[in-house]
Amino acid sequence: MIKLAIDVMGGDYAPEEIVKGVNLAINKYKDIELTLFGDEKEINKYLTVKERVNIVNAPKKLDMGEKDPISTIRKNKDLSMVQAFTHVHDKLSDGAVTAGPTQGAIVAAHLIVRRIPGMKRVALCPILPYFEGKNRLLLDVGANTDIKAEHVLQHAQFASVYLRGTKNIERPIVGLLNIGTEPGKGRELEQELFNLLSNDSSINFAGNIEPKELLTTECDILVTDGFSGNLVMKTMEGTAKALGGALKEEIGRNILGKIGYIFMKNNLKKFKKRLNADEVGGALIFGVDGIIVKAHGSSSAYAFMRAIRQARLAVLGNVVSIMKESLVSKNED
Amino acid sequence: MIKLAIDVMGGDYAPEEIVKGVNLAINKYKDIELTLFGDEKEINKYLTVKERVNIVNAPKKLDMGEKDPISTIRKNKDLSMVQAFTHVHDKLSDGAVTAGPTQGAIVAAHLIVRRIPGMKRVALCPILPYFEGKNRLLLDVGANTDIKAEHVLQHAQFASVYLRGTKNIERPIVGLLNIGTEPGKGRELEQELFNLLSNDSSINFAGNIEPKELLTTECDILVTDGFSGNLVMKTMEGTAKALGGALKEEIGRNILGKIGYIFMKNNLKKFKKRLNADEVGGALIFGVDGIIVKAHGSSSAYAFMRAIRQARLAVLGNVVSIMKESLVSKNED
Repeated sequence: MIKLAIDVMGGDYAPEEIVKGVNLAINKYKDIELTLFGDEKEINKYLTVKERVNIVNAPKKLDMGEKDPISTIRKNKDLSMVQAFTHVHDKLSDGAVTAGPTQGAIVAAHLIVRRIPGMKRVALCPILPYFEGKNRLLLDVGANTDIKAEHVLQHAQFASVYLRGTKNIERPIVGLLNIGTEPGKGRELEQELFNLLSNDSSINFAGNIEPKELLTTECDILVTDGFSGNLVMKTMEGTAKALGGALKEEIGRNILGKIGYIFMKNNLKKFKKRLNADEVGGALIFGVDGIIVKAHGSSSAYAFMRAIRQARLAVLGNVVSIMKESLVSKNED
Repeated sequence: MIKLAIDVMGGDYAPEEIVKGVNLAINKYKDIELTLFGDEKEINKYLTVKERVNIVNAPKKLDMGEKDPISTIRKNKDLSMVQAFTHVHDKLSDGAVTAGPTQGAIVAAHLIVRRIPGMKRVALCPILPYFEGKNRLLLDVGANTDIKAEHVLQHAQFASVYLRGTKNIERPIVGLLNIGTEPGKGRELEQELFNLLSNDSSINFAGNIEPKELLTTECDILVTDGFSGNLVMKTMEGTAKALGGALKEEIGRNILGKIGYIFMKNNLKKFKKRLNADEVGGALIFGVDGIIVKAHGSSSAYAFMRAIRQARLAVLGNVVSIMKESLVSKNED
């Protein structure tokens, strides 16, 4: 049985959508057992499943706008997210899923679940929308603003282990996000990383990738520092949003556009769905001693179910143990 | 009379489209005089205007894939781009327009036109597509991969002078590209810059801007280092391209989509045009002692005419002299 801890209180539509996502997941996956951390009364309002679900009453949630998440998390052991992550730390669950605040989740994962020995930095790793035959991983997107090349190398190793374990991709292709494709491009960080990635036999390195290929590259994994990754991810979001708005505007401008819309309504809906983060699930927090999935803050029940699915796959793929062993054997070299 | 030097040989569709762009510009703007640097025979094939045009025979062009542009530019005084920029350095032209390779143009601007005294670094500054009522400037997008806060401050000053001179925006709004909006976000560079920009009375600073607002922010100018800016710009390009492809795919998937397309064909064309770089003109190279406009490599005649227009406006706006004076008065403080 795969055991997962669920933060019921985190997310814009919590607890309702989260509990409804739990209903969907329990019905769909017969090999999971979920422990829900949240307001017991609220949970019972929406919970329709009885099997393989435990409830721990934890009505307090981590606030979105928390200025100092470190001390808040240290001082408030009763927060639903903190309790869920503690369940993972205590090995009572194999992983946790939360739709709570991103920075809070990274800090809590760090403080409570704790880094795998030998792993220098954690990384936040979202899955990019499906284009040209695959979903790609992008990391780090915000856990580390200043980082060394050797840390990014570990992130590339971790992401490779993850895709091998969850997607059966034997040799995931890794690209280094850079401002040009030739070796020698970029800052000192990229130049050093290019060498490290080229010389690591556990990495299937494809070289530098410019972000204009971000959604169409053959690479499965794109690595960069947390500052650049965060900018890139938010630029994608902003561009997609602005283009979507412009498309709507141009179509609505005259009667021909509106008639055309009636015909291709379903096509445009499918187009919109392709960009929808709900399909993907959530971002992974790599590097801590347990599977942590950070679902989108605006998760619907369906999106949260997909995030649970993602955590389940990572547990099934034995991702954390494999990475641990690989770090031990590297240290013994 | 505004005097501009034109590199006729640079660009994917040079010299034909460049010369045709010259024809358009000469007919449209009666206050410009252009000196064309390129293959005289080729130029005469396409040139339809006689007035206010001089031709200097310079058939050699700077190669796109040039590995070492610095020594190539130093050694080859006869390249069309080098000759055009030398015309600016010698004060025979007020500015130059080229559709040649970007890195080559930055290096040549640096080596030949030379930095304004007191200006620490040049910057490459494209104009973002028109959204929500304005075209925004983004800089630096690739001239400097490693940069200090004080250099970026100068870039913000330069861009402000440019918009005041060319667009009559009295107090252009400047935003700092960052991974969060709160003060204190980002790397050391952003934290230092936040303070410098806040305390500079010549800058109308709006604070940190996340790139998800890139195309919709109230800011007129967005500043960042050259590495981040280049990633952001290429991510925009890649996202727009991937989304355009996905839209086409979904519409073409069935008969309803195709019928809808017949109705809204013009609407979709307008949508596409909004993203078209041709409208914008080119990127500016800020910081050298003359106006240099780097038109898109794939410039059509129309796009090149728009780039000439942009150089003309910058000369009319007296951008370089104003910036020079401001740097002199700052040094005297």
